[in-house]
Amino acid sequence: MVRARTLDPAEYRVLAAVRQAGPLSRSELGAQLGYSRAAIRGVVNSLLAREIIEERGLGESQGGRRPRTYGPNGSLGFVAGVDVGATSLDLALADFDGTILERLDEPADVREEPEVMLGHVADLIEQLLARQNGRPEQLLAIGIGVPGPVKFDEGVLVAPPLMPAWEAFPIKAFMRQRFAAANIAVDNDVNVMAIGEAWAGAGRGIDNFIFLKIGTGIGSGIICQGNIYRGQDGAAGDVGHICIDYNGPMCHCGNLGCLEIMAAGPAIAERGREAALSGESEFLAEAMAANDGLMTAETVGDAAKAGDRAANEIVKTSGRMIGGMLAGLVNFFNPQLILIGGGVSNIGIRLLSAIRQAVLRRSTALSTRHLRIEFSPLGADAGVTGAIWLALEHAFAVET
Amino acid sequence: MVRARTLDPAEYRVLAAVRQAGPLSRSELGAQLGYSRAAIRGVVNSLLAREIIEERGLGESQGGRRPRTYGPNGSLGFVAGVDVGATSLDLALADFDGTILERLDEPADVREEPEVMLGHVADLIEQLLARQNGRPEQLLAIGIGVPGPVKFDEGVLVAPPLMPAWEAFPIKAFMRQRFAAANIAVDNDVNVMAIGEAWAGAGRGIDNFIFLKIGTGIGSGIICQGNIYRGQDGAAGDVGHICIDYNGPMCHCGNLGCLEIMAAGPAIAERGREAALSGESEFLAEAMAANDGLMTAETVGDAAKAGDRAANEIVKTSGRMIGGMLAGLVNFFNPQLILIGGGVSNIGIRLLSAIRQAVLRRSTALSTRHLRIEFSPLGADAGVTGAIWLALEHAFAVET
Repeated sequence: MVRARTLDPAEYRVLAAVRQAGPLSRSELGAQLGYSRAAIRGVVNSLLAREIIEERGLGESQGGRRPRTYGPNGSLGFVAGVDVGATSLDLALADFDGTILERLDEPADVREEPEVMLGHVADLIEQLLARQNGRPEQLLAIGIGVPGPVKFDEGVLVAPPLMPAWEAFPIKAFMRQRFAAANIAVDNDVNVMAIGEAWAGAGRGIDNFIFLKIGTGIGSGIICQGNIYRGQDGAAGDVGHICIDYNGPMCHCGNLGCLEIMAAGPAIAERGREAALSGESEFLAEAMAANDGLMTAETVGDAAKAGDRAANEIVKTSGRMIGGMLAGLVNFFNPQLILIGGGVSNIGIRLLSAIRQAVLRRSTALSTRHLRIEFSPLGADAGVTGAIWLALEHAFAVET
Repeated sequence: MVRARTLDPAEYRVLAAVRQAGPLSRSELGAQLGYSRAAIRGVVNSLLAREIIEERGLGESQGGRRPRTYGPNGSLGFVAGVDVGATSLDLALADFDGTILERLDEPADVREEPEVMLGHVADLIEQLLARQNGRPEQLLAIGIGVPGPVKFDEGVLVAPPLMPAWEAFPIKAFMRQRFAAANIAVDNDVNVMAIGEAWAGAGRGIDNFIFLKIGTGIGSGIICQGNIYRGQDGAAGDVGHICIDYNGPMCHCGNLGCLEIMAAGPAIAERGREAALSGESEFLAEAMAANDGLMTAETVGDAAKAGDRAANEIVKTSGRMIGGMLAGLVNFFNPQLILIGGGVSNIGIRLLSAIRQAVLRRSTALSTRHLRIEFSPLGADAGVTGAIWLALEHAFAVET
């Protein structure tokens, strides 16, 4: 574990290929990556000698003997995935083959100082390692998703609205104090969810899709040509502040009529409160009274599922707004798939149908010909799953 | 010229690298592509033996002897680039190194039958070849940009609004009857312009940018992670039909308030006509009278440049609308650069400043931190330049 953990570019590509496409034979690797037989043999032997990949039994015959196949060596070490939410921490520990061994989640407050919160994260990772009889120096990588814009190469947050104390905080250096052998990768939380769906969810094998997270805010992660797309400043996917009404209410960002202020969780809760107070919905009024006068988007969702007419209208209103914005993105990006996730996506199927209707109505016919719009199948697990993949991708540095 | 023109993936990558990054030495190629010295030597020797690349003198010393460098062999054959506009044809002939040898443009009408128009295009290509003492069988590839959505792999137009007779017409097979040795690549015209800027214009070395064409319609080409991005159905970039006003006028697509119907050439001309008729602008009234009662976006541009107040307001109105739409794309895509091209982009600098203002006002601060918005430097040449590059990229098929 002391030796430098670097790969040359060919080794990195072979490792990535066997991780992403399952056990592969040398001839499959050669065809996929465009290397000669001799080159592939050299790379595979080097990775085998370093115990980074391992044999995985025989593949299908291509006419002659059945070929040996290769996959990542699960017992090489551990990786950790961390999903930092505004109010929660979600952690997983996996082996080098990506099999999740341990899970843990607990409430948290992202407004805490980064030293405090990340120190606690490090403690939790050590606990998970200990459960597997693992030591800190066996941790190869940590993938961390955080709810704000990230300069990916440096692993620092840039102007994060929810967690100002984290601005420019050196997350990588801090975590490395505790796990000296680990490479650290930090990304925006919604990007990490998109990565989770890309490798282990509905996005498998899909080159171009958008993961839309609807919660207290609205954001998206973009998979473009098979890779996460972060944009020039790590700001790509920040669709919550796309204007949907030039005369709309003022958003916390200072602009008028942003999608987020008009359609996300708080807007849904506020409309629910109005429906309760105006007497429009008895269901909502009773639920609010039972909850100390508080209204949440979740309650509106419960009411909608119970058939409450006013609640259903509220859900549909948000769906129409979100779908109207997505229609523009569909015209621009022409994706194959849009996945809807985040806490507020649970408020009911009518949200999805309203989004679908608005997209179909407002996008060009050609751009929706093969488009599917679905709920995220990984749901609350998308973040931590993506963080594990992010860690696996960065377990080895690439020589340049 | 009879032998099969295919490359294995490694050969293709080396050829693309020397084309895109200028003359490169073997060690530069190895570093860039992640191949071993032995692998690079084999690939370079194979390409030299087939006269696909050639030596290009000595590069800079890395400590020892100065290394030989390699570039595409310009004399391998010719490629043609064709930019089919709604009312014009623009052609170029280049050598295999991308040096443009001949140019030609003439008026045309895209509503003609494809057989007639493409037959004429083939005649013109033969004329350009003859000027260089070239024969049809020396034409390695043709790149064609057409004003409509294209299924790129098949090279057919899909539901093209301007040229319905071309729907599903087999452009590749038709052109191959005349140029049996040529590979044919067909793409949307704005994609081709973006490719032109990417390889020979302001987009050189820029991974993520948007080329926006403003003319009779509005469309865009997307360069993402260094490659043209076509989307799932070849429909990516169709931003003219993004809604900017849910209560706006009806577009020819059937929806209300599309950007195109509110801000493109015809909308500018119509507002100019109103300003002329209402007496708001004497300049425009006189210009319209001098032009048999016709008003064009160009005339509005001339008036704006001459300082006409009403014309300037019209130009700014379009700029604000276009910028408002672009602000949403900037939030989503976080590009480094937006290039504004197309015939109507010539109506004046106030268009650009209004676009910039609207983007800065409505995009998130982080996403505009490094954003430049500029006129396309290639201008009217972007299309034919991109078509040449498209041809060069497809001169050889890749073995899979």
